[in-house]
Amino acid sequence: MGDLVERAAKLDAEDPLRRVRDEFDLDPDVVYLDGNSLGAPLRRVAERVEHVVREQWGRRLIRSWPEGWWTAPERVGEKIAPLVGAAPGQVVVADSTSVNLFKALVAAVRMAPGRREIVVDAATFPTDGYIAESVAELTGTVLRPVLADELDGVLSDRTAVVLLNHVDYRTGRLYDMAAATAKVHAAGARIVWDLCHSVGVLPIELDALGVDLAVGCTYKFLNGGPGSPAFIYVPRGLQGEFRQPLSGWGGHRDPFAMDARYEPAPGIARARAGTPDILSLLALDAALDVWQDVDLADVRAKGLALTEFFMECVDELVGNAVEVVTPRDDRRGHQVSLRHPDAETLVVDLTAREVIGDYRTPDILRFGFAPLYVRYQDALRAATALAALLA
Amino acid sequence: MGDLVERAAKLDAEDPLRRVRDEFDLDPDVVYLDGNSLGAPLRRVAERVEHVVREQWGRRLIRSWPEGWWTAPERVGEKIAPLVGAAPGQVVVADSTSVNLFKALVAAVRMAPGRREIVVDAATFPTDGYIAESVAELTGTVLRPVLADELDGVLSDRTAVVLLNHVDYRTGRLYDMAAATAKVHAAGARIVWDLCHSVGVLPIELDALGVDLAVGCTYKFLNGGPGSPAFIYVPRGLQGEFRQPLSGWGGHRDPFAMDARYEPAPGIARARAGTPDILSLLALDAALDVWQDVDLADVRAKGLALTEFFMECVDELVGNAVEVVTPRDDRRGHQVSLRHPDAETLVVDLTAREVIGDYRTPDILRFGFAPLYVRYQDALRAATALAALLA
Repeated sequence: MGDLVERAAKLDAEDPLRRVRDEFDLDPDVVYLDGNSLGAPLRRVAERVEHVVREQWGRRLIRSWPEGWWTAPERVGEKIAPLVGAAPGQVVVADSTSVNLFKALVAAVRMAPGRREIVVDAATFPTDGYIAESVAELTGTVLRPVLADELDGVLSDRTAVVLLNHVDYRTGRLYDMAAATAKVHAAGARIVWDLCHSVGVLPIELDALGVDLAVGCTYKFLNGGPGSPAFIYVPRGLQGEFRQPLSGWGGHRDPFAMDARYEPAPGIARARAGTPDILSLLALDAALDVWQDVDLADVRAKGLALTEFFMECVDELVGNAVEVVTPRDDRRGHQVSLRHPDAETLVVDLTAREVIGDYRTPDILRFGFAPLYVRYQDALRAATALAALLA
Repeated sequence: MGDLVERAAKLDAEDPLRRVRDEFDLDPDVVYLDGNSLGAPLRRVAERVEHVVREQWGRRLIRSWPEGWWTAPERVGEKIAPLVGAAPGQVVVADSTSVNLFKALVAAVRMAPGRREIVVDAATFPTDGYIAESVAELTGTVLRPVLADELDGVLSDRTAVVLLNHVDYRTGRLYDMAAATAKVHAAGARIVWDLCHSVGVLPIELDALGVDLAVGCTYKFLNGGPGSPAFIYVPRGLQGEFRQPLSGWGGHRDPFAMDARYEPAPGIARARAGTPDILSLLALDAALDVWQDVDLADVRAKGLALTEFFMECVDELVGNAVEVVTPRDDRRGHQVSLRHPDAETLVVDLTAREVIGDYRTPDILRFGFAPLYVRYQDALRAATALAALLA
């Protein structure tokens, strides 16, 4: 234990990201290990939102729409683009992840006439499966749930599109985007990646891998705020054939012409639907500024080190009382999931001790390690608290 | 002119809503006549949003989800319900108007198997038509645009659903909801009302009229903020058969059970899709509190009086230089639209004089009169400024 304390202190002192934590509005006594579910607030967000309400809305009123609000979905999208390896003009922020999944899946099915199957990760975060089920019903296709490891057995010339999660929300396992994308393309199908649990975790190379479509949320490792709007990536080469079903005026080529017929915008704006939600969008805009001074490679390195250190602390302090579900090699995101039959109660008891993780049914304790603000001493304190509860 | 000045002063002094203006954060020198496009901010909104960011998010972090965030869509919906004549449990706040229209139209088509036509107001705000076009394509139905006055000619046993705007966004004309609803029902079809330009304007009686479905935005006369989330009404009697296509986890019977299959919530929550956008939703929540002390009948009376007084001022000061497009009888919302070939330039010039209305293509000057904060003296000042520009 003494050794772990010393090591945590040393690792924190040597952490190249240690100053970034100061930009967050976090209670010093709280060990916050749920940034994989709701990221912590950057201090600048409260100030920005106040400015948007009091100045942009209060003083400029309707004039703020042409002064920057209307194009905010694309402008904020450009701040996400480098985090997912996208050149400009291919990411837009709009709606929720569920809604963007719907757009992406319908558009992908329409790109593949004659192919009648949608393949979806059977262990996916449920909303992905629910939306895929709905898209299958509306487009007259068939849903094929399959474990991501067993893709080979189901891909065929019937496959229209495959929807996969980059990081599994329960286990924290990271899937090989390059390999799966290549497999799906070899079958002549389209791939849609859900990046909810990987964006802001590690460098993602959507352009380089030739990914067809991707969606992700912004309230986890991007710290956009509760339910902040999601994003969608449509690469330039596919934008012309990207026909999405939520054809609101926001995606129109000339929204204020008030044409009777829908004609989609030529670029990424066609992935928009209705009027953008400005307060939340500009809160996210402010939160994304933290990435200007942060290198994703540092984030990834610290995330792996933090989760490894936490697993080591768990091994030493908790031992076999829990099972570590998350892969111990590098095929993981920035969360560690532990299995225990009393997981739900344990999460409540830990929270009462200001160690905040979360519970996923039926028996998973989930701890997220957001490298921008989580310290090695937090990892040790969490393992110590868990050990005390199980002792 | 002297008479108009005196009358404006007297009308303002006698206005039962005159104190409500103090609750808004408005520059005293601005004549804001665009509340039909973006309502002005209530003072309490900035305070509430700051509380949500700094306290609920910053201090309580993930714990705020079970402490009130997750059920906010229904809770805020209950504040809108009395404004549209809905008993509790029938209105939920979620997504944008475009997205809610999509949900409503697909659900309505599914309620009418065998009926293959969607009738939509040909003069509708374009997003309604665009979304209806998309729903027609996805559901294999046919879109029939028709002027709202000519419904009789198109309703038949082929009609699945009719989508109408309660108030026309260009002319400000108010349609007879009771008569149109009865006509559509007589044809055995469903009706969806778009309330964007009427909610917060006059008492609406969705339950009493047996309306099937309705949607509306909250950033106009409800002052929810730029792009604040929209609402959808599904009456209790139709909730069981309301099957909407955006089957995100937010509408699931038990979202945190993480079931592999989608099972919709039994009540209005089934109209939700993804994770609710909390900052914007709670800004709206705060804005809606103004209605606790306001009687919609007073709002309607003042709105009619304000628009009538404005038309009178225009008649006297501007005369035939513009055409009043909005009906002069009571069949109007709370906007007055004027036609002039130089409408676009005139709106810019008025804005430079701090008289803020808006322009709608090709030749419409549009002035919204939000009775909660617009004064009779504002109406006079707007007409006076317009007269000066046209002199």
